[in-house]
Amino acid sequence: MVILQHRQATNGSRVSKSTQQVSEIAKVCNKYKIPMIPYSGGSSLEANFSAPYGGISIDFAHMDKVIEVRPDDLDVTVQPAVGWMSLNEQIRETGLFFPVDPGPTAMIGGMVGTSCSGTNAVRYGTMRDWIINLTVVLVDGTVIKAKRRPRKTAAGYNLNHLFVGSEGTLGIVTEVTLKLTPIPQQTSVAVVTFPTIADAASTAQKVIRAGIPVGAMEIMDEVSMSVVNKVGRTKRQWDERPSLFFKFVGTPTAVKEHAEQVKAIAKSQRSRSFETASNEVHAADLWSARKENLWSMLSLRRPDSGDCVWPTDYAVPISRLPDLIAGSKSSLEKNAIFATCLGHIGDGNFHETILYDASDPAIKKAVVEHVKRVTAMAIEMEGTSTGEHGIGMSKKDDLVEELGEETVDVMRKIKKALDPDGLMNPGKIFD
Amino acid sequence: MVILQHRQATNGSRVSKSTQQVSEIAKVCNKYKIPMIPYSGGSSLEANFSAPYGGISIDFAHMDKVIEVRPDDLDVTVQPAVGWMSLNEQIRETGLFFPVDPGPTAMIGGMVGTSCSGTNAVRYGTMRDWIINLTVVLVDGTVIKAKRRPRKTAAGYNLNHLFVGSEGTLGIVTEVTLKLTPIPQQTSVAVVTFPTIADAASTAQKVIRAGIPVGAMEIMDEVSMSVVNKVGRTKRQWDERPSLFFKFVGTPTAVKEHAEQVKAIAKSQRSRSFETASNEVHAADLWSARKENLWSMLSLRRPDSGDCVWPTDYAVPISRLPDLIAGSKSSLEKNAIFATCLGHIGDGNFHETILYDASDPAIKKAVVEHVKRVTAMAIEMEGTSTGEHGIGMSKKDDLVEELGEETVDVMRKIKKALDPDGLMNPGKIFD
Repeated sequence: MVILQHRQATNGSRVSKSTQQVSEIAKVCNKYKIPMIPYSGGSSLEANFSAPYGGISIDFAHMDKVIEVRPDDLDVTVQPAVGWMSLNEQIRETGLFFPVDPGPTAMIGGMVGTSCSGTNAVRYGTMRDWIINLTVVLVDGTVIKAKRRPRKTAAGYNLNHLFVGSEGTLGIVTEVTLKLTPIPQQTSVAVVTFPTIADAASTAQKVIRAGIPVGAMEIMDEVSMSVVNKVGRTKRQWDERPSLFFKFVGTPTAVKEHAEQVKAIAKSQRSRSFETASNEVHAADLWSARKENLWSMLSLRRPDSGDCVWPTDYAVPISRLPDLIAGSKSSLEKNAIFATCLGHIGDGNFHETILYDASDPAIKKAVVEHVKRVTAMAIEMEGTSTGEHGIGMSKKDDLVEELGEETVDVMRKIKKALDPDGLMNPGKIFD
Repeated sequence: MVILQHRQATNGSRVSKSTQQVSEIAKVCNKYKIPMIPYSGGSSLEANFSAPYGGISIDFAHMDKVIEVRPDDLDVTVQPAVGWMSLNEQIRETGLFFPVDPGPTAMIGGMVGTSCSGTNAVRYGTMRDWIINLTVVLVDGTVIKAKRRPRKTAAGYNLNHLFVGSEGTLGIVTEVTLKLTPIPQQTSVAVVTFPTIADAASTAQKVIRAGIPVGAMEIMDEVSMSVVNKVGRTKRQWDERPSLFFKFVGTPTAVKEHAEQVKAIAKSQRSRSFETASNEVHAADLWSARKENLWSMLSLRRPDSGDCVWPTDYAVPISRLPDLIAGSKSSLEKNAIFATCLGHIGDGNFHETILYDASDPAIKKAVVEHVKRVTAMAIEMEGTSTGEHGIGMSKKDDLVEELGEETVDVMRKIKKALDPDGLMNPGKIFD
């Protein structure tokens, strides 16, 4: 049995150029029972592209083409190694864009694998909402197309949505048709500060209940704001208070109206300041604090230390998010763990970014126990350990805890039906 | 082997009251290999609840409760036999609503089964976009919950979206948690008439490309308008021209702005009239022509005749819809078939409602061939035979034609994995 280690030396990975080649690779791997691990942007956070059982990393580096843009259908067909930011640059002149915005280096293949999302999700939904069809290579090399190209369909099982988020465990996606949507006429940004995170959270709740169609609504705690100040990657100093970051999108009238409505709600919830962007540069400056959160934390790692950053990803019913954040902060404080808290509050999705020295067993143990504790809280609140990052390798137990063996068994049966020898990205989601 | 005929006499169906009872029924059926056919509103159009292999119809008539409304989470948990209109009445005082609007008698259970949609889909999406979790009884009586209750999740395979639209062939849905959304502050309606259906269609295209977030956008041909006049179920006479029906939703400012933008576009595409509702009664009057289309056609059937109504359901990439409508109308004319044409034009989804005498073999043959012809056109345009009705019994060949044997084989493998003896609503989607 030939086992090639993941990205080993220069030829550990196979670089593919076409669906046909991927099919050929799959046929060989299937014949010799070699695990296949698809790789595109490599920015996923749950070891989704690691190779715990060895095998071949199928690197899509050369499958990075936008195959066809169809402005009149508001769709585009791309290969897996097209980055979402690059895609938006390439199609800008059509007046359309693709709104799913995970980390800047993410590529469409991996975004399908993890069914990712980002700050735009509260307005535009997540990855799965933007898939029209997928071309998939199955374990034996068979090539299928999950759907044709209608924007709406009820034709049989929804295989699009089975493969999206399956983390490469059911097949290898080699081509994706995505929906596009018109670029809003105007986008503006506002940053609102509050005395407590509870005030910020209740403002967000009221904005949702009022049905104001904000473009994005993000919460950052006072620690996040102080880290952004400390690292100094943005152009200004920020109030070190719990803050809400809003995007407003639409016609100039709509943008103005939404901002005014949000301002009135924030005021009723004791907001301390409400700064609206007066132009595009100002908007980018305001948004930069949100954007730099993860990078700021990463840059705080001491060189030659055991410092690690652990981004968590809980999601709960939206009314419970303030409770979960409070529980998380209390546990962080009790255990002297340093972390920023930040959330896609409109979706009930919340990340801690924990900075800790993983070479110290006591610290590591405390962090692991903290994450277990907050995960248990999220599940107790009818939530999940993962709103957008996926299960990967480290949340397999959480998945069983969350959904029960019977539900995970249904997933296992589907896996077994499509990949009987367990060759497709093995060791992910469940064992 | 006990075979009970579908809804035979008084006890052909089992009326269930709880998930536990459904589980008991499934255990018995599984033991004696009896087909199980779930039944709720009975308004689906593709024989989805028929029993070609006999078996037990599991009637949810007594599982018609709204179990819990959680306004602060914008969600609600219901049993399968809750109608979507009844649900909206029951939750009205929360200021929230459930926006998926198929036929008025449809119930949530069946709506999950067919992954239905309606006129609101262009703004609010289809059934699958509104599912938070499903409780499902599997063939052996095992009860699973596909997800917990987060609004956003990346926890394992998306079983919600596998069961939605599987037409009861993978399991029996006994409880559903649905997302809700705030009732728009204002809703208005406009009816716009055009000299040709091509003008109406190009107006719709331009509205989509401009990104105007209309609440609904429906197209009706001149035949549809004349049938509504002829039957006289609405309060007025209509211009017998191709027409677009719009809903505008949002704040008063947004409603006004969207209506003005649409009016300007329509004018540039030779619109003949643009009537906007001045109040709620007027809006209901205007919308009534759209609403009465199917009922008007049904009432044209001659008593004691072989008259039948056949509603088709093609969907294509949106730029191709005018071509498909033209192809359909040309084939209808050539074959002297009487039908109205009407479409959810923003989604590329289009229905003919064909009225014909099914007792005349020549007419029946012509109609069958016509539908085959238009289906082939839709597939040729990268579309589907079904945008929202599902496959049921009569489109099984179309499904293979559309997606290929390999793709349908993936569906068959999943079916086999979850229902090895083929007891769950057999004879639907594929053989």
